[in-house]
Amino acid sequence: MEKYTITGLNIEKAASFLGISAQKMQEIIERRVLVPNWNEYQYLFRFEHKALNIDIGSVLVQKDDVFSLIFGFPKIKRAMLLGPAIRSNFGTISKVAVEEKMNGYNVRVILLEGKLVALTRSGHVCPYSSEKANNLLDTSFFIDNPQLVVYGEMVGPDNPYVPRKIYGIDSLDFFVFDMRHKDTGLPLPVYERRELCEKYGFKQVRLFGEFHIQEAADMVTNIIRDIGRKGHEGVVIKDPEMVLQPIKYTASQSNCSDLQHAMKVYNESGRDFIFSRIVREGFQSVEWEESEEEFRKRCLQLGESILRPMKESIIKVRDGERVTEEFTLRVKDRITLLKFEEYMRRLGMDIIFSEPKIVDDEYLVYMTKINKSTSDKTLAMWEGQLWS
Amino acid sequence: MEKYTITGLNIEKAASFLGISAQKMQEIIERRVLVPNWNEYQYLFRFEHKALNIDIGSVLVQKDDVFSLIFGFPKIKRAMLLGPAIRSNFGTISKVAVEEKMNGYNVRVILLEGKLVALTRSGHVCPYSSEKANNLLDTSFFIDNPQLVVYGEMVGPDNPYVPRKIYGIDSLDFFVFDMRHKDTGLPLPVYERRELCEKYGFKQVRLFGEFHIQEAADMVTNIIRDIGRKGHEGVVIKDPEMVLQPIKYTASQSNCSDLQHAMKVYNESGRDFIFSRIVREGFQSVEWEESEEEFRKRCLQLGESILRPMKESIIKVRDGERVTEEFTLRVKDRITLLKFEEYMRRLGMDIIFSEPKIVDDEYLVYMTKINKSTSDKTLAMWEGQLWS
Repeated sequence: MEKYTITGLNIEKAASFLGISAQKMQEIIERRVLVPNWNEYQYLFRFEHKALNIDIGSVLVQKDDVFSLIFGFPKIKRAMLLGPAIRSNFGTISKVAVEEKMNGYNVRVILLEGKLVALTRSGHVCPYSSEKANNLLDTSFFIDNPQLVVYGEMVGPDNPYVPRKIYGIDSLDFFVFDMRHKDTGLPLPVYERRELCEKYGFKQVRLFGEFHIQEAADMVTNIIRDIGRKGHEGVVIKDPEMVLQPIKYTASQSNCSDLQHAMKVYNESGRDFIFSRIVREGFQSVEWEESEEEFRKRCLQLGESILRPMKESIIKVRDGERVTEEFTLRVKDRITLLKFEEYMRRLGMDIIFSEPKIVDDEYLVYMTKINKSTSDKTLAMWEGQLWS
Repeated sequence: MEKYTITGLNIEKAASFLGISAQKMQEIIERRVLVPNWNEYQYLFRFEHKALNIDIGSVLVQKDDVFSLIFGFPKIKRAMLLGPAIRSNFGTISKVAVEEKMNGYNVRVILLEGKLVALTRSGHVCPYSSEKANNLLDTSFFIDNPQLVVYGEMVGPDNPYVPRKIYGIDSLDFFVFDMRHKDTGLPLPVYERRELCEKYGFKQVRLFGEFHIQEAADMVTNIIRDIGRKGHEGVVIKDPEMVLQPIKYTASQSNCSDLQHAMKVYNESGRDFIFSRIVREGFQSVEWEESEEEFRKRCLQLGESILRPMKESIIKVRDGERVTEEFTLRVKDRITLLKFEEYMRRLGMDIIFSEPKIVDDEYLVYMTKINKSTSDKTLAMWEGQLWS
C-alpha cells in the first residue's frame, strides 16, 4: 500500500509534540484520525476519531513548526434525577456553581495570524462564526493570554445551525462558558474565567449562583422551572474549581422543543435523539412528584411535541411542498458568504442561498436547507409505498 | 480450520434437496446459517440467517433421509396511509379480502412422528405451544394434507410471550391465518384455506369481508375504528388469490398499547420499535383528517402511553422492587413444563417459575421475567449515576 501523507504536516515534529513515535503518527494519519482543514487553514488538523486520549473535534495547530493542541468540547453528562446526581457527583465538595446552558451552537475561539478563528464542535473552521468572533470579541484577550482557548455558545436568530429567538438577541451573540489551556485541555476555575470575561468585556452565560450541596437540587429545580417558563434550555452544574466533572440538566420545554424539531424532519432524526428526550420526561415527572393533573399536562405536551410537527410535514408534502428548514445569515464581509457557501457544499449539505440584500451596512441572506430524506419518505407514503 | 459439521445432517442429500452443491451446503453449515434444534428434534434445522432466498426462521426437516422445507413467516409490510397503499398495491385486482390481525404470537404447525409440533417465528420448537397445538387441532388435517403447513396466532391470557385478555379467551386458543405448501412456501388462496379450516374445525382469524378496491380504504377505516374501540389489533388486507403481497394496518390503540409495554421496560426496548409506532400515529392523524379536539386527544393518549408505564417502573425501582413481567402457563402434561423451562434457559432468559398448582386437571404455573436492563438502569439513576 502506498504511503498516505498529509501535505504540510511535519510528522517527526508532530509526533514529538504529541509524545509518540513517528511510526505511530504515520498510522494515525493513514487511518484518517487526523485530517487537514481547507483553504487558508490547511495547517489546522482535525481529529476525526478519538485517539491517544484526544477527543473527536480536537485540533492540532502547526505554525512554523510550532505546535499546539486545542482540545474538543468535553462531553458533559446528564442528570436524570437531580437530587441523586448532585449528591453522588459532588459529594466531596461543599458548593456547586450553577450556570445557564444556552441553546445555540458551540464554538472554540483562537487567534491565528492576527485574526480570530472559530472552530466548530467537530473541529472545522466555520467562516460565518469566525467573522462573528472577530466582530464580537476583543482580540487583546488572546494576545494577553496566548495559552487560553475560549469556549462559548453562538446564540440568536441569525444562525446557520440553531436559530432561536428566545433570548431577545437581535442577530447573533457569543456567550463564554469555559476557558481551557492549550495542549493540556485543563479548564480555568469558574470565577477566574468569569473575571477574565469581565475584564475583556466578553459576554458570558448567566451564573445563577453558588449553592450548598444540600440545597442545590431544590435551587436548581426552581431555576429549571423558571428557565422552562421562559423557553430557555437548562443549566450546567459545576465544581467551582473545575476539578470534578460538570453535569447538565434541562427543562421539559427544551426537551419538547428538541422533539418538535426532530419530528418535523422525522426521517432524518436519530432514534436515540428522540428516545433520550422522552426518557428525560419520565424521570423528571417522578422526581418532581407531580399531581395527576400536572402529569396529564406533561403527557399532552409530549404528545403534541411529537405529533404536531410531524403532521405539518406530512400535510406539506401532500400539498406538493418539500420539508425544509429556513435560516437567516447576516455578515459584514461579502467574502464570508462565499466562504460559508463553499463550507456547506464541502460538508455535503443540500442548501439553497438567496441573493444577498444590503440591510444596515450588512449583507442579509436566507438559507434553505432541504430535508430530502423526510420529504422523499413522506412522498413515498402518499404514493402508496409501504413502510417496511 | 477444522471442518464444522452438524451431527445427523446428510449433507449430500440436503444439498441435492435444496438444489445446491455439497460444497455450498458445507459453507452454509460452517457459517451457522443452518443450525440444529435441541433434544428430540435434532433432525429439524433452523435457518438463523437468510440464505438461498430462504428467510430466517425457515426450518429444514430431515426424516429418514427425506427432506422438507417449512418456510418462515413472510414479513407483511405495513400501510402508513391506507388509501394510497391499497390503490398502489392492489390496483391490478378488483377486490381485496380483509382479515383480522390478532395480538398473540405466531406459530407454524406440522405433524412429526404422529404428534403436532409448533415452530416459533425463529424456527424453534416451543414445547408449550406444541402441547397446545396437539390439544387444539385435529391431527387428521395433517394426515390428509401432508404437504401443508398451518400458520396461525396463539392468543389468550395463558401465554408465555404475549398474554392478552382482549378476545374473551379463557386460556389460550389458536387461530389460523395462513396455510402454505411445504418446500415452495406457496400460500393457499384465502377461501380455499378458510374452507379447509371449516372442514377440520380449526378456529381462524375473522374475515371482515371482501371489498372493491374503490371502497376498501373507507371500509377498512371503519373496521379499524371498531377494532380500536375493542382494543383489538388490526387487519391484514389480502389478494384473495394470495398472489399479490398482503399489507397490514393497525389501530391507534394497538400502537399505544405496544408503546405502553415498550416504555415499561424502556431500557430493553428497541428505539426503532418505539419510533415506528409514533410515526404511525402521525400518518393516521393526517389521513383521518381529525379535528383539533380529536388530534389533542390522540396526542394525550400517545403521551400517556409513553410516560405512564415508564413512570410506574421508575417508582417501582425507587421503592426497592424490580421491573418484571408476569405470565401464566397452563398445561395438561407436567413434562411440558420441564421442557419449557429448559427451552427458556437455553434461550438465555432470566425467568423464575412458581411451583405448579393443579387446577381443573391442569398444571398452573406463574412465570416471572425479570427485566434486568431496565431495573439496573433505573436503579443506577436513583443512585445518582449520569445518563451518558
